[in-house]
Amino acid sequence: MEAAYRALCAHGYDDLTMRDIADEFEKSRGLIHYHYDTKADLLAAVFEWMVDRYEERVLAEVDAGDDPRQALEAFVDVAIYGPDDPAFDHWAFFAALIEFRSRAHRDERTRAALQGSYDRAVGILEAILEAGIEEGAFREVDAEAAAHFLFLATDAIRVRKITEGNDEALAQGRTALDQLVLEPLYVDGGG
Amino acid sequence: MEAAYRALCAHGYDDLTMRDIADEFEKSRGLIHYHYDTKADLLAAVFEWMVDRYEERVLAEVDAGDDPRQALEAFVDVAIYGPDDPAFDHWAFFAALIEFRSRAHRDERTRAALQGSYDRAVGILEAILEAGIEEGAFREVDAEAAAHFLFLATDAIRVRKITEGNDEALAQGRTALDQLVLEPLYVDGGG
Repeated sequence: MEAAYRALCAHGYDDLTMRDIADEFEKSRGLIHYHYDTKADLLAAVFEWMVDRYEERVLAEVDAGDDPRQALEAFVDVAIYGPDDPAFDHWAFFAALIEFRSRAHRDERTRAALQGSYDRAVGILEAILEAGIEEGAFREVDAEAAAHFLFLATDAIRVRKITEGNDEALAQGRTALDQLVLEPLYVDGGG
Repeated sequence: MEAAYRALCAHGYDDLTMRDIADEFEKSRGLIHYHYDTKADLLAAVFEWMVDRYEERVLAEVDAGDDPRQALEAFVDVAIYGPDDPAFDHWAFFAALIEFRSRAHRDERTRAALQGSYDRAVGILEAILEAGIEEGAFREVDAEAAAHFLFLATDAIRVRKITEGNDEALAQGRTALDQLVLEPLYVDGGG
């Protein structure tokens, strides 16, 4: 998986060949073909592996049992700026994720992995929002609708940075999230 | 353009052939080849035509010279639900737009048209936000950052509806926008 992911980041989805993966892989090319019939099969497995690995890191930083405001800030930071792990390249991960996403209509397994990851992220946000509303730390909002919205908004900020190659997108997105959404959500109004 | 757009909506980008377009077109196939060398050339022209046609309809409904709060509500409604024109199929338009977007890295002309459309939309939002802040109708926020954020958020709501085929995405997105962003933005706090 590690070798296939490295090859994917280096070559991009369309140009990637089984040979490129074998070149990154210390074992034989035959072994790859033994396990995976096609490039699509292998890449669907790589995608599931990538997502697991990413979610482990996110969960290490976002504890829904924390103070809800701290948990929400941690979620937004990790979503926008990536996990605080120098061994993990957040932008290579999202560039690859965007490639998988644009092809998900062609592959049921990739589509299921994407939907699962989306549902888990929204579930974490919803639990944080419900806890905050319950404690009186957040205003009363529709937690489910707000969870989808917050996830989509942080994702859109990442996508803009990647598609425009524009680093300012992150700071601008974080400013807007703070001013438009988070500060008004917190009951004491603080930032 | 009309014929090519109809063929695109019916067949999808990848499966579309010059023959499909000719079949939708009353004039000869030769005429299409006379004007456009390749499918990519023709589709780049279709994309520019689609975007112009959409923006005309949006501008007919969103007047940045209106009361800022009315203008902002009109922008959000037209972005999420589409122009109020039964002859315009908002969801066919966005499904096609998403296909162009996922291929924009391969075509400079499509990329330029997308960026132009994004910049104009964000410019309209920024003008509305600045007018509202100036008049004291909106809280003081960074209008540029907020304009990018609002555009990205409405776009993400549409994309979720299309990729999940989930109509609830629209009502949920509108609820979240109202509760999380718009109501707190309005100085009298009303909805």
